[in-house]
Amino acid sequence: MSAKKTPDIVIGRLPLYLRVLNQLWEEGRTTTNSQELGERLGLSAAQIRKDLSHFGGFGKYGAGYEVAYLREQLRRILHLNRVWPVVLVGAGNLGRALADYPGFRENGFEIVAVFDNDPQKIGLALAGLTVQDVAWLEAVIIEKGIQIAILAVPARVAQAVADRLIAAGIRAILNYTPARLKTPPDVRVQDIDPVARLQHMAYYLE
Amino acid sequence: MSAKKTPDIVIGRLPLYLRVLNQLWEEGRTTTNSQELGERLGLSAAQIRKDLSHFGGFGKYGAGYEVAYLREQLRRILHLNRVWPVVLVGAGNLGRALADYPGFRENGFEIVAVFDNDPQKIGLALAGLTVQDVAWLEAVIIEKGIQIAILAVPARVAQAVADRLIAAGIRAILNYTPARLKTPPDVRVQDIDPVARLQHMAYYLE
Repeated sequence: MSAKKTPDIVIGRLPLYLRVLNQLWEEGRTTTNSQELGERLGLSAAQIRKDLSHFGGFGKYGAGYEVAYLREQLRRILHLNRVWPVVLVGAGNLGRALADYPGFRENGFEIVAVFDNDPQKIGLALAGLTVQDVAWLEAVIIEKGIQIAILAVPARVAQAVADRLIAAGIRAILNYTPARLKTPPDVRVQDIDPVARLQHMAYYLE
Repeated sequence: MSAKKTPDIVIGRLPLYLRVLNQLWEEGRTTTNSQELGERLGLSAAQIRKDLSHFGGFGKYGAGYEVAYLREQLRRILHLNRVWPVVLVGAGNLGRALADYPGFRENGFEIVAVFDNDPQKIGLALAGLTVQDVAWLEAVIIEKGIQIAILAVPARVAQAVADRLIAAGIRAILNYTPARLKTPPDVRVQDIDPVARLQHMAYYLE
């Protein structure tokens, strides 16, 4: 059974399953089942069994799942049995909040370099790093073999910075700008777009 | 044709269409078509025509769309022909970055109150507001008739704060915490979950 054919929407749910398994593990629980996972996630038990079946199942029929085992398997499937180095571009208000956020490091991602083009920001200390001149962006990405970038720059320069990131070897971009990035098919982009999310919800309000 | 039956995934794309129409309008353009919208958004022209057909079409067959008209219609459909007051809970690093973000106000959402429970933060000035004691949360929401909240608190208190927000009348929550909120069916939640997005992309990396 090849995991490579798994629909992207299923892959997108695996981090949610992993988060619940981490919680169960912290609570000292050793086993769980699709009903419990479903209740914690607001999904049906059938959905969870179907999603996990893409990877071969993980449970004895009727016996549920071993928390530690399923957790490790999900970490392996998502390539989280390592720490991914991440480059952050943009040291404005948002960039600084992101650099200080402990959740990245706790979950497999370490910001190892921060860049900005503002002489007032270059050289400042930030979350144990020093803000570097964006002129060195490509050199650092290549030297450290970084594949993941967080983009927190003004929208008007987002595409130009993304082009530079991709040319230097970045293959996954967490895009905090409202710009819609044009990227090659082998580069993944996930948009963090709070305005669009608010507008989406406003549809349902009166 | 009732817009209320429109699939939620279609509603979720309307803010993206609106953003492109805003760009076209700023560029001084008066007409566009589904091909151009598709190219700017990375969607097919057929998808865009199908999405807009849920609301009656907006274009003469073969003649494309009038930018100003379609923009106004999307704003009306999304209930953006008004400014929505928003309450922000949490004045930590992330909360402060969100309070300072001009994109909310520019796109129909105005943060009108900020709360925290930290005596060190209560009373501080933030983006033209004063951080208030979270004890006053319900009173302010009710007094101002606020329906939308941005949640930027520690994960361990997220559910308790959400419960208070909902009891006071909040109907839409932009959730910046990694907690999976349990909410009644008439309350909308959109999760901003950068860790899950990074983990999702890591699946495709090697």
